[in-house]
Amino acid sequence: MRWVRYEAAEKVSYGILEGDEVEEVSGSPFDTYTRTGVRRPLDSVKLLIPVVPPTFYAAGLNYVDHLKVADPGLGLSVGDVPTRPNIGYRANNALIAHGEPIVVPKDATEKVQYEGELVVVIGKRAKNLSKEDALSCVLGYTMGNDVSERTWQASDGTMWRSKNTDTFKPMGPWIDTEADPTKMRTEVRLNGKRVSEFDTTNMVFGIATYISAMTRYLTLYPGDVIWMGTDGATDNMKPGDVVEIEITGLGVLRNPVVAGE
Amino acid sequence: MRWVRYEAAEKVSYGILEGDEVEEVSGSPFDTYTRTGVRRPLDSVKLLIPVVPPTFYAAGLNYVDHLKVADPGLGLSVGDVPTRPNIGYRANNALIAHGEPIVVPKDATEKVQYEGELVVVIGKRAKNLSKEDALSCVLGYTMGNDVSERTWQASDGTMWRSKNTDTFKPMGPWIDTEADPTKMRTEVRLNGKRVSEFDTTNMVFGIATYISAMTRYLTLYPGDVIWMGTDGATDNMKPGDVVEIEITGLGVLRNPVVAGE
Repeated sequence: MRWVRYEAAEKVSYGILEGDEVEEVSGSPFDTYTRTGVRRPLDSVKLLIPVVPPTFYAAGLNYVDHLKVADPGLGLSVGDVPTRPNIGYRANNALIAHGEPIVVPKDATEKVQYEGELVVVIGKRAKNLSKEDALSCVLGYTMGNDVSERTWQASDGTMWRSKNTDTFKPMGPWIDTEADPTKMRTEVRLNGKRVSEFDTTNMVFGIATYISAMTRYLTLYPGDVIWMGTDGATDNMKPGDVVEIEITGLGVLRNPVVAGE
Repeated sequence: MRWVRYEAAEKVSYGILEGDEVEEVSGSPFDTYTRTGVRRPLDSVKLLIPVVPPTFYAAGLNYVDHLKVADPGLGLSVGDVPTRPNIGYRANNALIAHGEPIVVPKDATEKVQYEGELVVVIGKRAKNLSKEDALSCVLGYTMGNDVSERTWQASDGTMWRSKNTDTFKPMGPWIDTEADPTKMRTEVRLNGKRVSEFDTTNMVFGIATYISAMTRYLTLYPGDVIWMGTDGATDNMKPGDVVEIEITGLGVLRNPVVAGE
């Protein structure tokens, strides 16, 4: 099942995507819902981010190859491969939906880069889950583009503007509840050309390991998202570019890049 | 005016505190509201955290004396005084209200410490505010206790469990819209004994500087909170202790410390 969050007729709704149509529900996938029978063509509604997360989690360094090729200015090396699943955070202000523009601030350097990521969407409140039971709290999966300004990432004490500038976190296009996270590849395309491709499953710490470790200390809530990190090279994007993330079974997350005023 | 968020008669409401009574409103201080005339004694309602923030911001190191006396295990020194207002993040799962227990996990070390902090509550959507106009988006002020497990803070790559373990972020008791942030002292008491006292205004970067810098890159939303950091010494707390934060004009934020199971 694919859950779409959208605006139509001046109302924000969740709907179930079937073919090219979305059927509106009352309620949400995080609570109870009922189908309304109201159907609209997908291309007639305005797609929104598939969830506004109560907490926005992100695994920072979760693929070994990304460390090998990360921007030298960041000072990262393979010796920085994490030995424990320490989760990090991103901020809701930066989230934008499929199709919305990534706005590059005037004072950003040329090093504004994509990072294609699998996003885990939590469906149920969870605490103290074993690794075996960890995926029981997962509703489904979507995609994220962890846009990063590398100069700021290297110079600032936190990742507030390097990764959380408004529009730097495209997420979508929808939540797929049936995709198999053990069989996924991630591909990133810039202006239609493949610029990065990796096995999504090739993580330092997998989804179940993260959820089990996290829920030993914290409660996960319905709607929380966990961005799982990126692998491989990341290149500069410039205004006029179009960036696409595609992960097996999850569709395509496409966003244009524009210059800020 | 003091805004209280509370549960009474199985309903969550905002109310206006007048003397020992709270008058329920429909709506919220972040939108429109109308007084309902329904009044209850403050001590008859269950206080909740005064807001569930869309984004939970926190200034990490914002007082010089705190750097001088910070736990040696953290490896901080006065050379770490930030040169720019880089904001950080905390997580909603950790928030608890005035009166609720801080639960120390079984595997925490003895270094579970308080940090008394002024909390700025944003009332209006804001972007690109000058330093002069920065406070125009502020609804009021409350208090926070940035409870920290120092061993984890030193060992982990992020502050996920050191500062964001469930119950580690007491916030409240209410939002005061008239308190003067230029004339505040912070006092922390452990079991009734004063253990820390400092000029709340003695920040490396003040509230207006933070808001102006932040809103150059990000949009602040109604309900966002900014915790402004702590000064001076922070001591260990143990199960059985009671910790109180008091800041001029904002009341007292009191929480017991209990052992986790």
